[in-house]
Amino acid sequence: MHSVGICGSDVHYWQHGRIGDFIVKKPMVLGHEASGTVIKVGSLVKHLKSGDRVAIEPGALREMDEFCKIGRYNLSPSIFFCATPPDDGNLCQFYKHNADFCYKLPDNVTYEEGALIEPLSVGIHACRRAGITLGNKVLVCGAGPIGLVTLIVAKAMGAGQVLVTDLSASRLSKAKEVGADIVLQISKESPKEIASKVEDMLGCKPEATIECTGVESAIQSGIYATRAGGTLVLVGLGSEMTTVPLTHASTREVDIKGVFRYCNTWPMAISMLASKAVNVKPLVTHRFPLEKALEAFETARKGTGLKVMLKCDPNDQNP
Amino acid sequence: MHSVGICGSDVHYWQHGRIGDFIVKKPMVLGHEASGTVIKVGSLVKHLKSGDRVAIEPGALREMDEFCKIGRYNLSPSIFFCATPPDDGNLCQFYKHNADFCYKLPDNVTYEEGALIEPLSVGIHACRRAGITLGNKVLVCGAGPIGLVTLIVAKAMGAGQVLVTDLSASRLSKAKEVGADIVLQISKESPKEIASKVEDMLGCKPEATIECTGVESAIQSGIYATRAGGTLVLVGLGSEMTTVPLTHASTREVDIKGVFRYCNTWPMAISMLASKAVNVKPLVTHRFPLEKALEAFETARKGTGLKVMLKCDPNDQNP
Amino acid sequence: MHSVGICGSDVHYWQHGRIGDFIVKKPMVLGHEASGTVIKVGSLVKHLKSGDRVAIEPGALREMDEFCKIGRYNLSPSIFFCATPPDDGNLCQFYKHNADFCYKLPDNVTYEEGALIEPLSVGIHACRRAGITLGNKVLVCGAGPIGLVTLIVAKAMGAGQVLVTDLSASRLSKAKEVGADIVLQISKESPKEIASKVEDMLGCKPEATIECTGVESAIQSGIYATRAGGTLVLVGLGSEMTTVPLTHASTREVDIKGVFRYCNTWPMAISMLASKAVNVKPLVTHRFPLEKALEAFETARKGTGLKVMLKCDPNDQNP
Amino acid sequence: MHSVGICGSDVHYWQHGRIGDFIVKKPMVLGHEASGTVIKVGSLVKHLKSGDRVAIEPGALREMDEFCKIGRYNLSPSIFFCATPPDDGNLCQFYKHNADFCYKLPDNVTYEEGALIEPLSVGIHACRRAGITLGNKVLVCGAGPIGLVTLIVAKAMGAGQVLVTDLSASRLSKAKEVGADIVLQISKESPKEIASKVEDMLGCKPEATIECTGVESAIQSGIYATRAGGTLVLVGLGSEMTTVPLTHASTREVDIKGVFRYCNTWPMAISMLASKAVNVKPLVTHRFPLEKALEAFETARKGTGLKVMLKCDPNDQNP
Repeated sequence: MHSVGICGSDVHYWQHGRIGDFIVKKPMVLGHEASGTVIKVGSLVKHLKSGDRVAIEPGALREMDEFCKIGRYNLSPSIFFCATPPDDGNLCQFYKHNADFCYKLPDNVTYEEGALIEPLSVGIHACRRAGITLGNKVLVCGAGPIGLVTLIVAKAMGAGQVLVTDLSASRLSKAKEVGADIVLQISKESPKEIASKVEDMLGCKPEATIECTGVESAIQSGIYATRAGGTLVLVGLGSEMTTVPLTHASTREVDIKGVFRYCNTWPMAISMLASKAVNVKPLVTHRFPLEKALEAFETARKGTGLKVMLKCDPNDQNP
Repeated sequence: MHSVGICGSDVHYWQHGRIGDFIVKKPMVLGHEASGTVIKVGSLVKHLKSGDRVAIEPGALREMDEFCKIGRYNLSPSIFFCATPPDDGNLCQFYKHNADFCYKLPDNVTYEEGALIEPLSVGIHACRRAGITLGNKVLVCGAGPIGLVTLIVAKAMGAGQVLVTDLSASRLSKAKEVGADIVLQISKESPKEIASKVEDMLGCKPEATIECTGVESAIQSGIYATRAGGTLVLVGLGSEMTTVPLTHASTREVDIKGVFRYCNTWPMAISMLASKAVNVKPLVTHRFPLEKALEAFETARKGTGLKVMLKCDPNDQNP
Repeated sequence: MHSVGICGSDVHYWQHGRIGDFIVKKPMVLGHEASGTVIKVGSLVKHLKSGDRVAIEPGALREMDEFCKIGRYNLSPSIFFCATPPDDGNLCQFYKHNADFCYKLPDNVTYEEGALIEPLSVGIHACRRAGITLGNKVLVCGAGPIGLVTLIVAKAMGAGQVLVTDLSASRLSKAKEVGADIVLQISKESPKEIASKVEDMLGCKPEATIECTGVESAIQSGIYATRAGGTLVLVGLGSEMTTVPLTHASTREVDIKGVFRYCNTWPMAISMLASKAVNVKPLVTHRFPLEKALEAFETARKGTGLKVMLKCDPNDQNP
Repeated sequence: MHSVGICGSDVHYWQHGRIGDFIVKKPMVLGHEASGTVIKVGSLVKHLKSGDRVAIEPGALREMDEFCKIGRYNLSPSIFFCATPPDDGNLCQFYKHNADFCYKLPDNVTYEEGALIEPLSVGIHACRRAGITLGNKVLVCGAGPIGLVTLIVAKAMGAGQVLVTDLSASRLSKAKEVGADIVLQISKESPKEIASKVEDMLGCKPEATIECTGVESAIQSGIYATRAGGTLVLVGLGSEMTTVPLTHASTREVDIKGVFRYCNTWPMAISMLASKAVNVKPLVTHRFPLEKALEAFETARKGTGLKVMLKCDPNDQNP
């Protein structure tokens, strides 16, 4: 392994030992935003060879079920997934992964960019589910790492104007930096007030809203804000039950869609990174060698930066 | 006018004078499920002539706005709509309508079938939004008139098995009669229990659920019941705020879609009726001449039958 | 194995030893329309057990490539396919197949129906690619076995009127029998004349045309006949180069789509057969025990019947 | 009127008096790439007022027919279209147009950008029909004005790499300038050789090919070049009959789609121009005042530049 980013879920498993029904019952290796170098391949592997630099898709199919056959393999219930108990992740020096889910990196894509394909994939999947297209006005709720990658992808897909909301001015300033056309700092407005402000600032209601906070009031804002016939994509996860103005969504044919991880994103992400259509490098704010993993996790837990990257190759600590 | 069906909304306006934000402020003609005979056309009308038997689509565009241009004209905010205040309906003898929304009926389609295209359109639009296709397992919640037309359309689109739920055994018996493969009478089960029963009875979770009751617990059942990657369509309207297991839907990528009336349904409905692919005749349970409208509305209000039809042509009271 | 249908390609390999670039270089078992009984499963197989009656999808993936990941596994270049050289088919008594592509048959679906899922799948895939939906007018060119299954599927998907063309009156009579609304016997008309007749008979141009002959003039008719904005699906295979009125198609936005085998059809076909939404039994016109395979192939070659079925289980020669 | 671009079709009508079945039978005003200033509006017009700067969509519906209702109004047979006989264009000082097809320009979009929305729309419609998405490899055949706008739009939609082919080195150099990742100058290669070179240069076959020349051999190259499961969009118009390797397309499920003008492109184009997501300014190479129209048309006919713009407002000859 070369570079492995720390995700919020890694910190959560470390601190709480569980996320929903996924419970850590025995020691588990963390890490699922990863890239590395091939040192050995199985005899049937044709597309990779020793020495290849690869990005790793953490979900790897265990069987060819109905979901796989229709191209939505992320929904396969038996899928292996790095650092989701009981499956081990790849925050380590040596790691074995299904070759079908390892993708060769072009020379002009760095290992860290390769590792960032994982969070980028969340943004790609969300924007694809939202049906973002040329000239769209888009509302992104939340300017954390996922909100930012969503913003980056929406712009890359041709969105005309992306408005990002958050409680934190510093997060919004980062959003501006990576491409937000408009930002809106939220304080005590009601969901309807936020929707109204969004409409005023964009000049019309957005065709798509991508909700990255999981907060009930933000979901409500998303429903009020989205244009009739548009789409609200839920990326952020909230509590089990949510109270929402469902009738307001349904009578205006605002579709509500969730995302579960992603599928079919690595090849397009690599293509985008290779062509310099997106720039994810500013997302990395901290780097630590693998030996200082604890310090890295503390940094991630404090949430002062964006992406903390662990460098697993003692011979190459470059990006 | 020849035949005009009474819809639940007609009864509601009659009894309560309003539905949500639509308030009856001055006398309004009711009726929007209608067919009749052309007696005169404007000079620019080419597709119709005096004597033509026509079905009337009650929503008629007033302007060519963005929603019309993309083919979702039902979402046009300025649309004229029969019997939605302040627009008059067509439960009367003579009525003038935009010719672009009058559709000639073939000889082998009766006036009453023509009038029933309106409720049928709700079913068509719902099934189309649900993406029903060959062999699908479908759950329809509610066996009222809208549940029944949804069932009929789902079968016509090739659904493999349609399971219909309702509180009432007699409604379910009607559902069986018009094509339900399986029926499930609900009493006091929890939403999760209903979802579990549905899965047992169908042998798997349904790809699509079409909710026609508007009841919160039924919407919850719909979310629990629908297969990962499937679609829940909300046809029934409930209260303003609804509490739902949204995370359960979003992490399984169960899309939640509403419907607002319909668009582009009359031509396909006429084609289906002409080819005898669907049979809506059993839906008509009562007929009254226009003079006995009050009696007809009382009958509709009691809900003993399914569809009450008013016969507006004194010279022809046939179906 | 229990029942295996003879396909035109089986006869072609038998007679000519090749189809296009696929050349029979060593003895090859024929047969790919098949059903049978499980006698043994691998240790990882969970969805099947000994004694299960199964239909066999002849294409079985050998690797998880880009086409598989997006749900279009039929396009995978390394796919195994029964009776396509050098891969052996299943016209024999005992045969081993990838369990992921064996589908359990419900009790009310016969082995022969199970075997017929293969040709039915061609019709399903073609109709799905054509986007057939409720009330559509459809033109099917050719009333051979593939034209007939296409017709059956189009009706099951809710097509309003299906018009079938062929040179042969007897084939058209079979088409009538299995559900064609209108038939048109072709003799010496030009492609434009045929298109004009089709429009007259249907009352309008069809939204979709499914071409099952591969003949150049029929493809031309298909382009002229299809409504602006519609789709022409090419199922029949013709010569390498074809001369067509491409500008006529493109300036009317008539999409031209081909099909290569099928994908994701077995589950929906089984669901349709189980619910009796389609009836394919009339397609079987001849049955022979496996020992009389030569006689069966001679019968298929003469083309007097529709589907010739070989019965491979000496203990059960029932349908 | 303020700025009106000269299109190849304008030159063609001027020189030959016809394009296909469209024949100039009486004097006709040319011009359909236009923007101007509103001086008067009808009493029902709400979205525009005197003084507004507008871009004009040259196709304006005359009736609400089936194509309009489904959102594909470009296919409406009765549509009015500027400078297509017998309808007059807008290359003049004062011109009246259906207000529904006049779109207000934001302050930061120039009149010339407004006029260029017309050719840009061809590119948008083609790329949308091609389904271009994030990271796609795209082949654009032809580097004339339409090839260039297609290239610009493909990049704006997130295409990873766009390869442009042409016979002319100078056109390809312009393509490079406006964003082509790779260019390929064609000389005497066969269609298969071109397809092979394209694959080598892109590292794989393109998911989409957009053919902007109308030349038979280029269409053939497009079929050979496109990846299985991909799309070939035909923008260039050739002769009536075309000989193509149709089987090669259909057995690899390469869809062949045409475009007829465009629909629903002005709002997204304005949004893109306002957000500076695309830059079409380099396309304008010549400007003439309206009085020098003849000189302008001579310049356009010689084809030395790209877009020749006529300035119709004597008081404002700015871009």
